[in-house]
Amino acid sequence: MKPMPGGFTAPIGFSAAGRSAGIKKTHQPDLALLFSEAPFAAAGVFTTNRIWAAPLRVTEEALRRGRVRAVICNSGNANACTGARGLRDARRMADAAARALGISSREVAVASTGVIGLPLPIDEIVGAIPVLARSLSARGSLGAARAIMTTDTVPKEAAVAARIGGKEVTVGGIAKGSGMIHPNMATMLAFLSTDARVTPVILRRILKQAVGRTFNRITVDGDRSTNDMALILANGLAKNGTIDGGRQAAALAEMIEEICKRLALMIVRDAEGTTKFIEITVSGARTPTEAERAAFAVATSPLVKTACFGQDPNWGRIMAALGNAEISLREERIGISIGDAPVVRSGTGLGPDADAKAARQMRKRDIVLDIRLGSGKAQATVWTSDLSTDYVKINAAYRS
Amino acid sequence: MKPMPGGFTAPIGFSAAGRSAGIKKTHQPDLALLFSEAPFAAAGVFTTNRIWAAPLRVTEEALRRGRVRAVICNSGNANACTGARGLRDARRMADAAARALGISSREVAVASTGVIGLPLPIDEIVGAIPVLARSLSARGSLGAARAIMTTDTVPKEAAVAARIGGKEVTVGGIAKGSGMIHPNMATMLAFLSTDARVTPVILRRILKQAVGRTFNRITVDGDRSTNDMALILANGLAKNGTIDGGRQAAALAEMIEEICKRLALMIVRDAEGTTKFIEITVSGARTPTEAERAAFAVATSPLVKTACFGQDPNWGRIMAALGNAEISLREERIGISIGDAPVVRSGTGLGPDADAKAARQMRKRDIVLDIRLGSGKAQATVWTSDLSTDYVKINAAYRS
Repeated sequence: MKPMPGGFTAPIGFSAAGRSAGIKKTHQPDLALLFSEAPFAAAGVFTTNRIWAAPLRVTEEALRRGRVRAVICNSGNANACTGARGLRDARRMADAAARALGISSREVAVASTGVIGLPLPIDEIVGAIPVLARSLSARGSLGAARAIMTTDTVPKEAAVAARIGGKEVTVGGIAKGSGMIHPNMATMLAFLSTDARVTPVILRRILKQAVGRTFNRITVDGDRSTNDMALILANGLAKNGTIDGGRQAAALAEMIEEICKRLALMIVRDAEGTTKFIEITVSGARTPTEAERAAFAVATSPLVKTACFGQDPNWGRIMAALGNAEISLREERIGISIGDAPVVRSGTGLGPDADAKAARQMRKRDIVLDIRLGSGKAQATVWTSDLSTDYVKINAAYRS
Repeated sequence: MKPMPGGFTAPIGFSAAGRSAGIKKTHQPDLALLFSEAPFAAAGVFTTNRIWAAPLRVTEEALRRGRVRAVICNSGNANACTGARGLRDARRMADAAARALGISSREVAVASTGVIGLPLPIDEIVGAIPVLARSLSARGSLGAARAIMTTDTVPKEAAVAARIGGKEVTVGGIAKGSGMIHPNMATMLAFLSTDARVTPVILRRILKQAVGRTFNRITVDGDRSTNDMALILANGLAKNGTIDGGRQAAALAEMIEEICKRLALMIVRDAEGTTKFIEITVSGARTPTEAERAAFAVATSPLVKTACFGQDPNWGRIMAALGNAEISLREERIGISIGDAPVVRSGTGLGPDADAKAARQMRKRDIVLDIRLGSGKAQATVWTSDLSTDYVKINAAYRS
């Protein structure tokens, strides 16, 4: 597997474009179009939030009924909690994109990200789509990545290539974050592309697993938005024998997971107002679910996150978070290291010298927390950021 | 039911005292003793955190085996994650208090609050207990309330009296908080007293229900500490006919819940670094559990809490938090008001004028969020504070 330039448009037959449609008052790019010249297979994973923004319903329907090969996505407005009008507007976006591309509306996915509860400026969006379609380019990934940004400070794209069944296959993608980091700015979005030939069933299974291990293992503030989605379009233009399981599916899965992981970690690193990137690994859990639950309990604890901001190797808070994780726990078996400095063995602290060594590890930009439960063989890694005064300032700022 | 002065020592036959035993470097009071001149019944509720500090084990054992009528409690050190030595130290505290009071160790409950992971200065504590016991006083509630404080800025006490079965019965109590608001400062503690005659079974049932509706309905940062406990001692000196159910039990339950609620709300109001007191009521839920879950999802959302700090009537975040609550939800039935200003009806926003009215409600010290799910008849109220820049600063400060 080798890294490639080009992001979403790195695989054969994909094009993209971004421009301003006047949704953001700043006149920054806020409308992106992604296109595959051939349809083959597509799959999507949607937010677990029970409240779905309108575009998710339209996209879910398209994936069920059609052969999706285009995505129209706006930033600056989430089109969430917008009732019947929101659904109408999302459909109008799909229709306009389909018309401009000369394809069926059922081949178009729709996504939105931004403020919840405001109606879309739908006429401006629909008006901008034909121009956007004409500017589609095989070098358009970065422009599209910029147009889906909200509070992101950098566009996020990645691509890798590898040989599968004797053919070079490429997987690419763009994403934006960061969770729900900004006032009412819902949404994690990821759009992946591949020129592999793969059955829809396998593609869906691979995407679901990859998202579960990457995008679903990052947390900035523990909230899942009303608009989160990850989509993958496969166009088959690599002309490999159709992947329908086995080793080739495993190889493709590895590539897709790699792209998802790169994009997911870019989102955590770009979380606004944060000063630390924190990797938390829990091992020795009885089950994978318990490992994940324990890691998330630590990753979402405001007290652990503020300790990271304060560079305090405050392992008591990690212990307390583990105790809150609703897993089976044997206190006297717990071990904790911060970076390469052990701070807890057999459930008790190793003393001031150990804490002093750990304090040096806490001063790094990247903090690694290694937690051993001693109860089994399962493990999980999650990634998060710290909770800083700037996080609060940014999120407390009035929307307007 | 009428409010009374005197806190924990308001009921007949209770005394209390507090003093410095040198645990806190500031020489502020850090050791409290509570005593009932007669044993009758006692009950306790302990943290749901799977990691229990040593004193909880000793107290749980005393409640199971003995007739608890005294509490020895230190602040400044949680005696948590301290292994076998911690357990030995907690037992030594109980033994020393029993000796000083001339009662059995099985009649003594032990509690601690403060930093996790450090050994107790047990010799100083044991040495201070005889003097403390000699200073027990029927006017000692406030002194004891001060001695159990950690980051609390005010001591917390309350008492009420009412007639039950023709006799005046009094319920009192002291508490400290605030959740886990300070670096490694674990613990919510509440100690209640009553002169009612009541069976242990009924007393336990009443306390459990009262704690469930009050202390367990407040949240500052969503973490439950390793040391939380609520205890009630009943000495029967009001000489009412022993309460064993029925209307008299209901009357006593009302009094105990009132004291728990007053103390719980004092804890939220005293949460360090916060600027708002937030009451969240969810009604129209299908079940009480779903109502509580929804209210807590809103109360623990960092985005809702920062919006309260920023005085932004950001209902989109409330909707997103509800969607994350893992309850059955019909978006199109949701209604939300902030104070007396409606902002959401039938799942959609009421527009800029409504938001402007709600913004005025957000500027108050006390914010009331009223959420109607329209799915059933169950309701729940929880209380919380905002997430402020000061909260982060306080919690990011190094322990030393």
